[in-house]
Amino acid sequence: MQVTFELPGWVAEYEQDYIATTSLEAQMRFVIEASKRNVKKKTGGPFAAGVFEIESGRLIALGVNLVPTGKMSILHAEIVALSLAQRIRGHYDLGQENLPALSLVTSCQPCAMCFGAIPWSGVRQLVCGASDVDARHIGFDEGPHHPSWAGELEARGIEVVTEVQRDDAVAVLSDYFLSGGHIYNSREG
Amino acid sequence: MQVTFELPGWVAEYEQDYIATTSLEAQMRFVIEASKRNVKKKTGGPFAAGVFEIESGRLIALGVNLVPTGKMSILHAEIVALSLAQRIRGHYDLGQENLPALSLVTSCQPCAMCFGAIPWSGVRQLVCGASDVDARHIGFDEGPHHPSWAGELEARGIEVVTEVQRDDAVAVLSDYFLSGGHIYNSREG
Repeated sequence: MQVTFELPGWVAEYEQDYIATTSLEAQMRFVIEASKRNVKKKTGGPFAAGVFEIESGRLIALGVNLVPTGKMSILHAEIVALSLAQRIRGHYDLGQENLPALSLVTSCQPCAMCFGAIPWSGVRQLVCGASDVDARHIGFDEGPHHPSWAGELEARGIEVVTEVQRDDAVAVLSDYFLSGGHIYNSREG
Repeated sequence: MQVTFELPGWVAEYEQDYIATTSLEAQMRFVIEASKRNVKKKTGGPFAAGVFEIESGRLIALGVNLVPTGKMSILHAEIVALSLAQRIRGHYDLGQENLPALSLVTSCQPCAMCFGAIPWSGVRQLVCGASDVDARHIGFDEGPHHPSWAGELEARGIEVVTEVQRDDAVAVLSDYFLSGGHIYNSREG
């Protein structure tokens, strides 16, 4: 028994547009544009995330939300990006000493699951666009967040940067909501 | 670009041994035995989880920890079992009204990531064997747990049952530790 998930075809082509930069704003704009295209191409929810080398700005893997299309609740953009990066690096730990440190740049603050996945992934930095308030505002459930989520990550040596290009990220969420996009939360009880 | 993970071959054969029962103790013994075999067969860490129908006791999917062998940090037993069950059901939400309610039975209390994944999965019950203290005792990091994790799940209509066959579950963890099993935490900073 095996389980496979696959990036939509347009992602590989879109990745070619990225010009390596260490500007978090530029990386975030690239990620937000991917979240927008994911909605437009109807390949998943309005979220995207990328794994970048911190020092060079090189893109390692780009992920988009695939929950409704991939039919698995774990397929948030962050999980997709981190898993792809681990497959590319050939190891479950992206924090190995002999390799360049990596950053996870996500169009929206990670939900409770993705928050818990970050320490296991080995990334050394988390960069967020929209906040959980923004996601909740349009009806997406962010789950039971740890009350001091950023502090918990920082305590594990993972730098947290929030609200980078937040307005642009929020605009994608708002457009999704206003155009009647499917809010795919599982039942809440 | 696609990502695949695969259950070890012995799991399908072992699943044949299960006789449907609504006894949580019997379900847990079956799951704990899978965690033991996962170590013996060297197919992953000392953890297993199963998705069962609450009313009939029927097994929907059995998962084992595949982190070191599958080379992805998300491949905890719970994530593997839930994703398999969603693939089998053909939907990201296992809590659909028209289908039998499901339970996640796990040999060890879920880590911070798996805790966050449970509300998205649609299961209506969580049954745990070993506690997070037991896992931490042998060196596994459970991550930044929500201080009221069980209450948060209960508030979402997910019943939580803990310490079912705990001693048996702890014995597998202890044996793993004493035999020099690999503790594969990612770096902590």
